[in-house]
Amino acid sequence: MTERVTSGRDAYTLLRDCGIRVPKEELATTEEEAVDIVHRIGYPVVLKIDSPDIIHKSDVSGVVLGIRDEEGLRRAYADLIARVRDLRPDAGITGVRIEEEAQAGLELLIGGTTDPAFGKTITFGLGGKLVEILRDTAVRVLPVPETEIRSMIREIRGYHLIQGFRDEPPRDEEALVSVMKGASNLFLDHPEFTEFDINPLILYEKGSIAVDARFVAGEERVSMEQKCRPLTSSMLNPNAIAVVGSTPDQSKIGYTITRNLLSFPGALYPVNPKHDQILGRKSFSRITDIPDPVDMVVIAVPAKVVPSIIHDCVEKGVLTAVIISFGFRESGEEGRRLEEEIVSIAQSGGVRIVGPNSLGIMVPPKQINTTFNNNSAIPGPFGFISQSGALITTIVDWSVFEDIGFSAVISAGNQSDIGFVDYIDLLADDEETKVIILYIEEIREGRRFLETVSRISWHKPVIAIKAGSSRIGRAAAASHTGSLAGDYQTYRAAFRQAGVVPADSIRSAFQIGGILSGQGYPGGKRAVIVTSAGGFAVLSSDYAERNGIDLVPLPQSVHTAMDLILPPGWSGRNPIDMIGDSTAGRFARVFDILLQDQSFWDIAVIISAPTAIADPKQVALEIVRFSEHTKNMVLAAFPGGDSVRPGIPVLRRGGVPVFSEVEDLFRSIGEVILATKKR
Amino acid sequence: MTERVTSGRDAYTLLRDCGIRVPKEELATTEEEAVDIVHRIGYPVVLKIDSPDIIHKSDVSGVVLGIRDEEGLRRAYADLIARVRDLRPDAGITGVRIEEEAQAGLELLIGGTTDPAFGKTITFGLGGKLVEILRDTAVRVLPVPETEIRSMIREIRGYHLIQGFRDEPPRDEEALVSVMKGASNLFLDHPEFTEFDINPLILYEKGSIAVDARFVAGEERVSMEQKCRPLTSSMLNPNAIAVVGSTPDQSKIGYTITRNLLSFPGALYPVNPKHDQILGRKSFSRITDIPDPVDMVVIAVPAKVVPSIIHDCVEKGVLTAVIISFGFRESGEEGRRLEEEIVSIAQSGGVRIVGPNSLGIMVPPKQINTTFNNNSAIPGPFGFISQSGALITTIVDWSVFEDIGFSAVISAGNQSDIGFVDYIDLLADDEETKVIILYIEEIREGRRFLETVSRISWHKPVIAIKAGSSRIGRAAAASHTGSLAGDYQTYRAAFRQAGVVPADSIRSAFQIGGILSGQGYPGGKRAVIVTSAGGFAVLSSDYAERNGIDLVPLPQSVHTAMDLILPPGWSGRNPIDMIGDSTAGRFARVFDILLQDQSFWDIAVIISAPTAIADPKQVALEIVRFSEHTKNMVLAAFPGGDSVRPGIPVLRRGGVPVFSEVEDLFRSIGEVILATKKR
Repeated sequence: MTERVTSGRDAYTLLRDCGIRVPKEELATTEEEAVDIVHRIGYPVVLKIDSPDIIHKSDVSGVVLGIRDEEGLRRAYADLIARVRDLRPDAGITGVRIEEEAQAGLELLIGGTTDPAFGKTITFGLGGKLVEILRDTAVRVLPVPETEIRSMIREIRGYHLIQGFRDEPPRDEEALVSVMKGASNLFLDHPEFTEFDINPLILYEKGSIAVDARFVAGEERVSMEQKCRPLTSSMLNPNAIAVVGSTPDQSKIGYTITRNLLSFPGALYPVNPKHDQILGRKSFSRITDIPDPVDMVVIAVPAKVVPSIIHDCVEKGVLTAVIISFGFRESGEEGRRLEEEIVSIAQSGGVRIVGPNSLGIMVPPKQINTTFNNNSAIPGPFGFISQSGALITTIVDWSVFEDIGFSAVISAGNQSDIGFVDYIDLLADDEETKVIILYIEEIREGRRFLETVSRISWHKPVIAIKAGSSRIGRAAAASHTGSLAGDYQTYRAAFRQAGVVPADSIRSAFQIGGILSGQGYPGGKRAVIVTSAGGFAVLSSDYAERNGIDLVPLPQSVHTAMDLILPPGWSGRNPIDMIGDSTAGRFARVFDILLQDQSFWDIAVIISAPTAIADPKQVALEIVRFSEHTKNMVLAAFPGGDSVRPGIPVLRRGGVPVFSEVEDLFRSIGEVILATKKR
Repeated sequence: MTERVTSGRDAYTLLRDCGIRVPKEELATTEEEAVDIVHRIGYPVVLKIDSPDIIHKSDVSGVVLGIRDEEGLRRAYADLIARVRDLRPDAGITGVRIEEEAQAGLELLIGGTTDPAFGKTITFGLGGKLVEILRDTAVRVLPVPETEIRSMIREIRGYHLIQGFRDEPPRDEEALVSVMKGASNLFLDHPEFTEFDINPLILYEKGSIAVDARFVAGEERVSMEQKCRPLTSSMLNPNAIAVVGSTPDQSKIGYTITRNLLSFPGALYPVNPKHDQILGRKSFSRITDIPDPVDMVVIAVPAKVVPSIIHDCVEKGVLTAVIISFGFRESGEEGRRLEEEIVSIAQSGGVRIVGPNSLGIMVPPKQINTTFNNNSAIPGPFGFISQSGALITTIVDWSVFEDIGFSAVISAGNQSDIGFVDYIDLLADDEETKVIILYIEEIREGRRFLETVSRISWHKPVIAIKAGSSRIGRAAAASHTGSLAGDYQTYRAAFRQAGVVPADSIRSAFQIGGILSGQGYPGGKRAVIVTSAGGFAVLSSDYAERNGIDLVPLPQSVHTAMDLILPPGWSGRNPIDMIGDSTAGRFARVFDILLQDQSFWDIAVIISAPTAIADPKQVALEIVRFSEHTKNMVLAAFPGGDSVRPGIPVLRRGGVPVFSEVEDLFRSIGEVILATKKR
């Protein structure tokens, strides 16, 4: 890749043209000229050697700072020329640049880079070496509205310095906003620039000045955007499914797929010329032999045979081919050609392809399971789209155990035709899907992902587990600002901008999903905690603080009301510790008080630990009743084992998210609140 | 509390006396004297007004920086005097201090504070305002050996600046070590000082200079150290137990305690004058009526009656009184007096007291359960000491469900006689206890805790859940350095110094405990990951990086050996992704290769996701066999549900810690490694 760097005077010109102040500077070719220039610019000044042959000025001490008078100027000029001539006799010297020396102020960094998935991004942080060490930066995918620029500025911990920390005056935040807008536009307006940085931008009480900047022009990164042909939600609702590669041989994938589809209430056609009947169903030699219409075909035959099957699909007017077969793009050049061939055949006849190299799909509400997984997911609110088949197997296995249900489970496979974003679009329109959960290793269509998800996440929550943050991060650590931001930071920024809630692990994703499917987004982050266990009152205060949740003080009226119904030893504050001898009735009376004044809290967290006195089922019923009477968010934690278990199905049925580990509750709601803020 | 601040010249004198360089400075009472002084000190200098009446020099612009020549000096001197006379005509002026102006360099902060639990601490970080904002500091409880001082310096992210970041030269780390040693000793040698800070200490390529410092003398904080009377482990092994307050009334605590003790194989004596027999055991009117010796008495009667019971205990020669009764110190002044009374009676007769206001204790290997908990813990390796009764109830309930066992469960209650550290000492000597887990809200005997645990943790791991970090932190945010360090940071520092592994949650504590009881500490942090699921290979790379675990490159010989036994599509690197069709046999062959060269890895993480091919029980057996043949650490993750469950008891029995969430495994081992580094 060829790279061209614009820095120095040319970078200044670019910045000046978009309204960003830079130091006054002129080129002197003689000592007298230098003196003249300073008469215009004024002391103090900086001298910089100007030579096309010298790239790193510091190698020849080519910069002299802090020149305050004519004597100093003349001496520095002569010394500089002499030094460079001595050290680099071969270098042509154009002259010496005389530059206004900027006053000291708060040094900031503004940078931009081009992310392979999301395109151009902007980074903001404190300037100087500290920024690289302490990584106190904010990142956004461009373009960003002004509100996001303001939120970036406030997001870094160093914002205190801009506000005016201790005895320092506040800095000109408006000037900073305007520089960031200008720099963003400049970066976007020049498609040839792949990265830039202004480091430092010096911010004053009034105004700012950019004293060093560079712009890197590289080859335009290849856009991996795919063409989008809309899917219809009928894809999840076929009337007839054929299984090509069906077999009675229990050791084969085709057997498991057929068995998994036996409960499908629509028509099911095994296709295998060697058998008349498979698992009690009539078998056909070819798809085209099936007398009735077929809208979905599951293919589990060797890769080489797949093109001819797709031909048959086209002939038969099939809508969707789910290709389980592997040996395509993932296995090398020959496979890649085979994959292109099947896509081309399919597109010619209007057949859409899931996979190849897919585990298949499950649509539990329709009793569809085209995978060769040993078990089937149960119906429920989650639409799960995964870039890993093994993860689906694991999650489905776990979900059955945990009683977690799905509207759809989709293994994206090689995404030869239907891409990851297409599936998101599909589930956005699917009524059964209340929450979309994604397992992502790589996003190819970053822009479309952002646009699509931004649109969806307003009415349907989207949660993402992003894997490969470390590996990809390393690979992409190409440029200065880029390595600072780190690729994972870009993903997180993109997620936040699009309203995606990030999750660190599978469990966390479904816990967050449980909150969002049961209770939606909270109205704010003011929480009240109710418990009968002192230890959990203390622990949960810590967890709340650590996850950015505000424990609101109780209003006087609420405090007085609590005093009337609670024993004298209650905590007298939030967390409301009602003491160990609390009954379900005491929980209920506290809930009634919270229902009477719903204005001071957004989230109620009820922690019910095992006791001899409170019946967990009764407590759960009271929590459900409480939740039904408020639009605010109600969450429950039932830590313990068998003693508290009877309460859990009651809460689940009542739509109240329940956690067995208190820390998990606060971690999850913390992520939800962060995502809510960006909505 | 009266506070006295030593700053300025007096602070300089203190520092100079312990070998820390400070600016040269002298007091001038006339302009001529000032000129004379600078002849000795040399330019540049700083002028500071010296007046006993002016505390905040900045209010009168009483400091003038950057004086470089005599003309400037004379002008500044005259201006300064005039300005102060004008602004504060009432103030007596002693003169003007002329101070050497230190050259620019790396500004650092060294501070000290007095923690209510652990006593004097030292804080180190970057100087200036950034340190307060970015909280990049290291803390230790004093005294610290030089090795710990060195580790503090290297711990902060800003250490890069000391090493010489980018084009900057490395700084004089040895000079810094010596200043930190000197300052620590100075702080320790002056019991009257409760806090101090040197801010900034300027560090150069050679040497350093402290340009501002203050020492605060306050009232000596009350030491809450208690006298220690050793416990003997026979406390956990009584031959005869009496229950005072035993009753056949099922609604009473005394009933549950008696019922819980029915399985105790030693002698059990209900004590209640109203009954001849309770739950089939002969009941006695008083302890003193029991014909045979009694070494433990459990007391569950109203607080007012307890003193007379303790009298009886003394008369009977009882060793331990477990007081479940509440209404003592926790309920106010009267209760506090009652508590003092029972302690005094008990101590006079050699009776040791657990509680009062304790849930009781459990010693599962001896079938002892003196609590009124509904269920009993099962025997196992964990000794659990808790400052919350509700937490014990929850954890025991959960542990039965999760098949986690205990050597002892102790509810410390009010710690009227036996303190928290005494219990730790007790379990240190208990052979059944392999790992000690603590739930801590507050440590009163910080010093003894540190000494005791430091001694123990070398041979028996100690894990601590510290609650109340936010609340206590707030209360203790009294002083500048103190609020920086935060109380929780002091706890974490103390834990690390003592070799305690901190845990954020109950689950995490027992997961860490599982690693330590099953496998001890690892030899290092070089990990190799083996899995058959691509998604988990990617996710686990992220988790490893995030938790400070090194994924070692595979040596060429190992790579070659793997090539011979693995299918062509294997990952070719660490994590070793053996592909989805792996059998238990393939796992075994990879383990054999790892056994052949055990020098390049310290920890092996085996992730077995559900597949149709690998039998989880077989995989588990292979992992156990692998673990038996290596001294290195072997950990397993079996994510999923029912499909993988059969492997779990196999691993547990084989002493291989097993996790159902991959993230938990890496979080736990990350904490263990951090603690290992300090060993």
